[in-house]
Amino acid sequence: MTQIIRTAAELRDKVAGWKRAGALVGVVPTMGALHDGHLSLARAARAQSDRVIVTVFVNPMQFNNPDDLAKYPRDEERDLALLDAEGVDVMFAPGPDEVYPEGFASKVSVAGVSEPMEGQFRPGHFDGVATVVTKLFGMTQAGRAFFGEKDWQQLQVVRRLARDLNIPVKIIGCPTIREADGLAMSSRNVRLTPDERRIAPVLYAQMVQAARTIADGAPVADALGQARREILKAGFSSIDYLDLRDAETLQPLDALTDRPARLLAAAMLGDVRLIDNIAVPL
Amino acid sequence: MTQIIRTAAELRDKVAGWKRAGALVGVVPTMGALHDGHLSLARAARAQSDRVIVTVFVNPMQFNNPDDLAKYPRDEERDLALLDAEGVDVMFAPGPDEVYPEGFASKVSVAGVSEPMEGQFRPGHFDGVATVVTKLFGMTQAGRAFFGEKDWQQLQVVRRLARDLNIPVKIIGCPTIREADGLAMSSRNVRLTPDERRIAPVLYAQMVQAARTIADGAPVADALGQARREILKAGFSSIDYLDLRDAETLQPLDALTDRPARLLAAAMLGDVRLIDNIAVPL
Repeated sequence: MTQIIRTAAELRDKVAGWKRAGALVGVVPTMGALHDGHLSLARAARAQSDRVIVTVFVNPMQFNNPDDLAKYPRDEERDLALLDAEGVDVMFAPGPDEVYPEGFASKVSVAGVSEPMEGQFRPGHFDGVATVVTKLFGMTQAGRAFFGEKDWQQLQVVRRLARDLNIPVKIIGCPTIREADGLAMSSRNVRLTPDERRIAPVLYAQMVQAARTIADGAPVADALGQARREILKAGFSSIDYLDLRDAETLQPLDALTDRPARLLAAAMLGDVRLIDNIAVPL
Repeated sequence: MTQIIRTAAELRDKVAGWKRAGALVGVVPTMGALHDGHLSLARAARAQSDRVIVTVFVNPMQFNNPDDLAKYPRDEERDLALLDAEGVDVMFAPGPDEVYPEGFASKVSVAGVSEPMEGQFRPGHFDGVATVVTKLFGMTQAGRAFFGEKDWQQLQVVRRLARDLNIPVKIIGCPTIREADGLAMSSRNVRLTPDERRIAPVLYAQMVQAARTIADGAPVADALGQARREILKAGFSSIDYLDLRDAETLQPLDALTDRPARLLAAAMLGDVRLIDNIAVPL
């Protein structure tokens, strides 16, 4: 049975016992409302670690928009049942006061990779991510941590901070899991209306189209312009960004180079903000 | 023999071996130019840990003043000999490029306790301290860390960040070591001229006098005003601050309460900036 732990102190004791027995601990940080994307991370952790902790914490510090925080889906009982079926050892589900007790005053920030895209459209978001992830690494003492490529920019921020702060954890990125029609799995997808849900896969489809066109040698600006028009025509209300960037540094690219490139997008569909990213070439 | 280690990778291997053998690791972070204050920390670490690492790194990120960084005394051979005599296992002395390699982009900051006093007079100083200390905790994986009470505000910043970021290290503050005439030991003391060296103990003497007067019931403003006048009359050129504060929160106090209080000061003597602090009552 997956054990629920709610305090850092209890988690520390649990982990200390595992470590004494020589176990390698893997952690999957999540905000709950688990879907197959999260479960694929839990499976990767299970395969590559001796003990697996999935953290379930809707981190207020990374929400720049209070409405988004209030509407973020939560279903702890269902999450627990799903993790149990995956053989996860511990679901660490602390309350906000356990993570940010009175007097809390510290912040971890990462310059560079955190600045464009999500950093521009969600001010403070990556400070919240970097801070809570640093805390979760401290609390879990994990040797391996599993993050979805769905949040590609977040993955680069986490890689950077783990390296910069000499945290002894290996960061493992896992492929985005998609619905049959291509829509990237996201806890926010449940907030789409049936009409919006039908429109949503256009984002990915147009990104794939643009990636193919760019890989075939078309000018990047032309390919992205065409994709933007199609995405808006399909019913998205706005596009925060649709950028070709260096996959690691996230510097903008106006042409492919010999380094890995990534196409990243964020767009509004009704009142739901969807993000996605893919490698170029695919 | 104390072993010199210069890279985080080599230190990690060394520590991993110790940990496998069940050793408790203690760390003493220093900027070198060691004096009896540092050595008292090494002794405390020796007494309370199985293995002791003393780090020697003049951290550019915590110097707001490039001139102060350039003039900071360095004598690695002497440091090594002193640590060897104390039975220290490892002197970790990385270069700046090892601590801040190309691409480094992260920062740890602590609000609240870092803001007054040194935070006001040395902008960015505590971001540099918090960041390098977080890195040293990551690199050394120490279970105990020893800091001098001489840098009282720094000690509170470090306590706060270790707690806030869930770093599994116990922070141990050790009493300030003083010269026979009361001057707090500091690596910067070697920069005092003979005349300045004669004047320097007035800072501590006047702090003690003020602490006694306050403990006896005198108004805090009167006692501190008197001390300020005497310190300047003795030959100090300016006083950055001389404050009575809550010992833990560092909130200013205009009277003693039932919580521990601390008198903290920074003052310029020639081109050397001296700091000191004492408990009130003594």
